[in-house]
Amino acid sequence: MDDATLADVGELEVLRRFLPLLPTGDATLVGPGDDAAVVRAPDGRFVVTTDTMLEGADLRLDWSSWHDLGWKAAASNLADIAAMGAVPTSLVVALAVPRATLVRDLERFAEGLADGIAAMAPGCGVVGGDLGTAERVTIAVTAFGDLRGADAVLRSGARAGDRVCAVGTLGMSATGLGRLLAASAEAGGTLEPGAAERLAADDATVRIHLAPTAPVAAGPALAAMGGTAMLDVSDGLALDAARVARASAARIALDGAAVDALAARLGVARDAVLHGGEDHALLVTLPPSIDLPTEVAGAPLTELGVVEAGEGVTLDGAPVEPRGWDPYRA
Amino acid sequence: MDDATLADVGELEVLRRFLPLLPTGDATLVGPGDDAAVVRAPDGRFVVTTDTMLEGADLRLDWSSWHDLGWKAAASNLADIAAMGAVPTSLVVALAVPRATLVRDLERFAEGLADGIAAMAPGCGVVGGDLGTAERVTIAVTAFGDLRGADAVLRSGARAGDRVCAVGTLGMSATGLGRLLAASAEAGGTLEPGAAERLAADDATVRIHLAPTAPVAAGPALAAMGGTAMLDVSDGLALDAARVARASAARIALDGAAVDALAARLGVARDAVLHGGEDHALLVTLPPSIDLPTEVAGAPLTELGVVEAGEGVTLDGAPVEPRGWDPYRA
Repeated sequence: MDDATLADVGELEVLRRFLPLLPTGDATLVGPGDDAAVVRAPDGRFVVTTDTMLEGADLRLDWSSWHDLGWKAAASNLADIAAMGAVPTSLVVALAVPRATLVRDLERFAEGLADGIAAMAPGCGVVGGDLGTAERVTIAVTAFGDLRGADAVLRSGARAGDRVCAVGTLGMSATGLGRLLAASAEAGGTLEPGAAERLAADDATVRIHLAPTAPVAAGPALAAMGGTAMLDVSDGLALDAARVARASAARIALDGAAVDALAARLGVARDAVLHGGEDHALLVTLPPSIDLPTEVAGAPLTELGVVEAGEGVTLDGAPVEPRGWDPYRA
Repeated sequence: MDDATLADVGELEVLRRFLPLLPTGDATLVGPGDDAAVVRAPDGRFVVTTDTMLEGADLRLDWSSWHDLGWKAAASNLADIAAMGAVPTSLVVALAVPRATLVRDLERFAEGLADGIAAMAPGCGVVGGDLGTAERVTIAVTAFGDLRGADAVLRSGARAGDRVCAVGTLGMSATGLGRLLAASAEAGGTLEPGAAERLAADDATVRIHLAPTAPVAAGPALAAMGGTAMLDVSDGLALDAARVARASAARIALDGAAVDALAARLGVARDAVLHGGEDHALLVTLPPSIDLPTEVAGAPLTELGVVEAGEGVTLDGAPVEPRGWDPYRA
């Protein structure tokens, strides 16, 4: 067993062990090791998003394995690229951890990144990063994508008459979060090593909370189908639908029976479907003329409602109050 | 006086005040507000680098104003883009701060970013970001650049016979750091509000440590002049020259008289020139045929030595031991 810490081996040795675990990427012209990387942007544009995960606010080391953290950091960024209709080409990763962290934990993190990329966005590479130290784990990922000549699908394009669909799951991550919180409370605040893993083995909601698989390939497919507006559901269906409604100056009218059918199929509560975030489903509006498939790029498509003239989000005609997640007031 | 904290006003109001302070950018197609941004990459490639500043390891709130932090975060990233020979097009900024932070401090941060960009890379925009909370200030910037059809200048291109030059200052930031540390020790560990500002007013080295002006426009100019290898001196001349030497399989032979003349001109010690980082000068190797100018894009150029067959870094023929900065062992 290799119990060396970062402080034991130093930065060069950490990089020597960390970098080879990461995928190179099909679009990479100059990878890690120089002042900057160079990445192909074949159509003369690139899509970019950034997302940070901080210990405490966004992650708990008694819940997530290092593999989970790498996977989840990839998922949340890849989902935002997909939500524009783009194909992810590359990531850069800044990672700061305590000096006492084991080198093998960083290797597991790199493997989680690599496995997440392989599962969600094969061909995407890690082209650079920044390793540092912090008292609490800090993960900042920036992701890039290629629109392949197509227009980006914004939040603002929904039109009255469009159908409102979700691709992927809703409410499972929040349900899993609830179970992890309950188990932690029962354990006196902190889970024992291995406990989260055992919970996840028996419970898909916990698995999805710890290592969500975003329907990344569905993003460009939905764009090609004519998606008029799209976003990654990271804060909950009601809140994220309200963003589409506001940006599009339209109403998103959700159908209660469809929401309940999805909740039943996924084994979660209606409230979880409406307000749970972080499954990283894609919320998309599609023109009425389209024959809706049941799956897009392997992920389930569920019709949830329709775009109407008006504003806000309704459920069976009644306004739905979005439950905001405000990091400054949480 | 507006003493509202982030927790008082919430995320939407913070964004409403923060975003308008940031430059849009000439290359921006879709800016902040959607899942991701879209940026022009006219020659079908983009350059990307990421750099994180963490309270404690990289920044101190008793030294740096919020304006300084924004400026410095821009400078360190823009310098890495310039060191590839590219023109910066855009940045994304992830910022996590305590909830008790004043909204006006975030406004000062945005103004520092904007002012740093205006001074170093006019036309560059802030296209996205991520605001969150953390016990200690966390700033993760990712920057993008455009090579305008030229080859990237890597660390690996130095050839025997090339001249070794620095563009910008060396050793001033480290000298300023030393003075801030001394003043802090004298003050019992922490500087009083306003003390760092007063030190900086009288001392260019302190100013450069807190808010360095990287010679960003010199990067593409040096590339166009035929620069064979280039990097941003972030860890000190000796260590960064050793990186060029290793990547290029060559020796960087520094001239003691030239180093001493530069030290005298800048009013710092030889050791500071050799081993001080964070001025963000560009270290460049240029073919012997070039008539060296005294300035490049407004920044002073100093010839410091020559590339020879061999390995490592020498000063007047004697090996120079690079003094490593290892974040995991510091």
